[in-house]
Amino acid sequence: MSKQQIGVVGMAVMGKNLALNIESRGYSVSVFNRTGSKTEEVVKEHPEKKLVATYTIEEFVASLEKPRRIMLMVQAGKATDLTIQSLLPHLDKGDILIDGGNTFFQDTIRRNEELANSGINFIGTGVSGGEEGALKGPSMMPGGQKEAYELVKPIFEQIAAKAKDGEPCVTYIGPNGAGHYVKMVHNGIEYGDMQLIAESYDILTRVLGLSVEEVAEIFTDWNQGELDSYLMEITSDILTRKDDLGTGQPIVDVILDAAGNKGTGKWTSQNSLDLGTPLPLITESVYARYISALKDERVEASKIIPQMDVPAYTGDKKELVEKIRQALYFSKIMSYAQGFAQYRTASEEYGWDLNYGEIAKIFREGCIIRARFLQEITDAYDRNPELKNLLLDEYFLDITQKYQQSVRDVVSLAVQSGVPTPTFSSAIAYFDSYRTADLPANIIQAQRDYFGAHTYLRKDREGVFHYDWYGEDNK
Amino acid sequence: MSKQQIGVVGMAVMGKNLALNIESRGYSVSVFNRTGSKTEEVVKEHPEKKLVATYTIEEFVASLEKPRRIMLMVQAGKATDLTIQSLLPHLDKGDILIDGGNTFFQDTIRRNEELANSGINFIGTGVSGGEEGALKGPSMMPGGQKEAYELVKPIFEQIAAKAKDGEPCVTYIGPNGAGHYVKMVHNGIEYGDMQLIAESYDILTRVLGLSVEEVAEIFTDWNQGELDSYLMEITSDILTRKDDLGTGQPIVDVILDAAGNKGTGKWTSQNSLDLGTPLPLITESVYARYISALKDERVEASKIIPQMDVPAYTGDKKELVEKIRQALYFSKIMSYAQGFAQYRTASEEYGWDLNYGEIAKIFREGCIIRARFLQEITDAYDRNPELKNLLLDEYFLDITQKYQQSVRDVVSLAVQSGVPTPTFSSAIAYFDSYRTADLPANIIQAQRDYFGAHTYLRKDREGVFHYDWYGEDNK
Repeated sequence: MSKQQIGVVGMAVMGKNLALNIESRGYSVSVFNRTGSKTEEVVKEHPEKKLVATYTIEEFVASLEKPRRIMLMVQAGKATDLTIQSLLPHLDKGDILIDGGNTFFQDTIRRNEELANSGINFIGTGVSGGEEGALKGPSMMPGGQKEAYELVKPIFEQIAAKAKDGEPCVTYIGPNGAGHYVKMVHNGIEYGDMQLIAESYDILTRVLGLSVEEVAEIFTDWNQGELDSYLMEITSDILTRKDDLGTGQPIVDVILDAAGNKGTGKWTSQNSLDLGTPLPLITESVYARYISALKDERVEASKIIPQMDVPAYTGDKKELVEKIRQALYFSKIMSYAQGFAQYRTASEEYGWDLNYGEIAKIFREGCIIRARFLQEITDAYDRNPELKNLLLDEYFLDITQKYQQSVRDVVSLAVQSGVPTPTFSSAIAYFDSYRTADLPANIIQAQRDYFGAHTYLRKDREGVFHYDWYGEDNK
Repeated sequence: MSKQQIGVVGMAVMGKNLALNIESRGYSVSVFNRTGSKTEEVVKEHPEKKLVATYTIEEFVASLEKPRRIMLMVQAGKATDLTIQSLLPHLDKGDILIDGGNTFFQDTIRRNEELANSGINFIGTGVSGGEEGALKGPSMMPGGQKEAYELVKPIFEQIAAKAKDGEPCVTYIGPNGAGHYVKMVHNGIEYGDMQLIAESYDILTRVLGLSVEEVAEIFTDWNQGELDSYLMEITSDILTRKDDLGTGQPIVDVILDAAGNKGTGKWTSQNSLDLGTPLPLITESVYARYISALKDERVEASKIIPQMDVPAYTGDKKELVEKIRQALYFSKIMSYAQGFAQYRTASEEYGWDLNYGEIAKIFREGCIIRARFLQEITDAYDRNPELKNLLLDEYFLDITQKYQQSVRDVVSLAVQSGVPTPTFSSAIAYFDSYRTADLPANIIQAQRDYFGAHTYLRKDREGVFHYDWYGEDNK
């Protein structure tokens, strides 16, 4: 019996769709699921496909050509460890395990190291694009042994989404956990993008008094320009949809405003705090979800805390809509500038040698944050691969100069209207902090030296100093 | 030879000062330090004190009356574990180890549990107030076995700071890591307070064009009213000081604006992210320190990104100063509302049964965030011990209604002037989010259901729903 070229473990929707995607590129695929009935079901659903069902780990492993390529599409965490343990006794040196789950990058670093001791290669790969992406072409972010990736590369390049210039949206990211790390921050950026769109919607409806339909038109319009992106596209589509339970209302008006999360945004924020790299916009978007989730408490608070009458907007509406568009684009730039600065810090901290331009490239299609805008980031890193912050690139310098007044006006208006804009506000605060040579942190250092003798540095000379705050001479 | 009543391990400044403080209340104290010369030095420095120097662990332990009370004042982390290991073989059941370091609360939970297996009690206590506080009276936050705390309580109540009403600034916080947790969030709040003062200073100098001396006068004035606090007091003092290296400048003008940190603010933010409780203001203050630390990068950016001319303020200066004062007080309230909401969530998550009013009480004196304002929090929890959020208490309702327009005006002015106010901005965004019944998170839930089939809840009925976004019927 001939051996299959690749195996997929885990037949939930992501694993199934990825197996179908791989098969559709002409590869023979063994599939396995802990519960065999699930495997049977998948194979029966697709009789025309070259999917080989296997029902024991031994049978699954034996069905694969060597070195084996095994893609794990199981739940991140314990399930992944258990699956690896069950496979390990049957593997040979040089085999390649590929984890395609939403795994925390530190787990991938650990597994890569542990398996390397047994001579097994371990690739952790981000897979973005949801169910549809897995089936038709996701954006993929593989990290692990480079020589092992070379044996997977032909398959990945075929199943990945393709950018407009034909390039596959997959590239070798770096050693051990680099791929899952890049996916994690991608998800954090996704949180920021979603919150920025939500705040834009809030201002358009509550300050300008526009209807859901009118906002749908505006978003459709915005999606034709610089803001062209998957999230803008689906949001304008969402706003045109009616409730499917017959209330006659737009679907968004019946959906509860309590946002959930799967933790990847949180991880991104926590990691930025560990690395000491500022990521305020994405973190505000995580907190915005948390506040939204306090729905009952907010409803209660809204009855106790007197509400503001948002005054009817009396200015030029069209002009304000354009300002909001500019504020959205400006804020999006701040978010990506922070995210990509975090990549740079992480690359140094974990020794990954990340290629930032390549990362932006593979985000251009397939993934949730795909957008025309990503090309601008790729171009910026093409101009200067060592760019410290996107804000210093000529394109972004030009745009932020042109658009900064809009974000100032929109934030002022929202704040005066009582409409919360945590990420818009955070965006302009980041910009103004980053471009400012002298911040008031000298006050903080003086305070720390005063109460904790933490010492301070000086602007005018080298060295570490302590001021004798309690000494009589200095009073 | 008679036995001593308590022992202190670690003769760095905090341990030494705490030992002297305990001794000054009439207790006999054994002291020990890994490096014996340090112990000798301390005892020689204070010949009039009843400090008993010991030079081996055996001698130290043997010198104490039973059950032994041993206070560890060593570096948090590995040093604490090593010290415990070296003590353990010499201890008896019922002895009490007390960790007074800035220990991460999860480490305290672990140590409390491990030591309990050997019959040893373990108290983790926050000690706030810096070196001077340790010597003269800190605020203390002990957590661990309640029955063990009872044996320490008489000492702690004597060495702690005293509030104006005579109550000692120490109380039993709760089991295992509760004390160190409360100290951690205290430090996070401290970060927020410091950043809010720094932003106020920035607006006063850069928007109003005031001199350092003028701001010193304003802060001194503010310190007479609602803002009366240790941090306000020392900041106004700091602003009057001249450089001690003879440049003739105010000391703050020569101190480098790159703020350091010891990690407790970061821990607080990371924990809020784990608990799912919004803590945006403190987290923005952590990020503000991180951005400040990028001094070289900011100086470079300030040359590349065109700078704004901050227009001279033409309005009534006195009126604006009062608005900034109100904005500062309003924002401080938001920060404490978030911090105390985090205590509530943590209390439920870790099973601590925290008493929020008592916590505010022990912050009134001794610690870095001590302030007249803490009495308002104590009073609020006296009125309603189950208060969900400080913003719902009558006093805070009243103040926030009176002051909210000021924070809106100050944020708008700062944003239009290009002066970054990350925490002021975050404060008003939190207020407007918390008091709003309907946030735009419905857009986020629709997006998540669209690209990831994450489902959604409805406003009008119970149940979990998924919209068939790709189905032809719904287009």
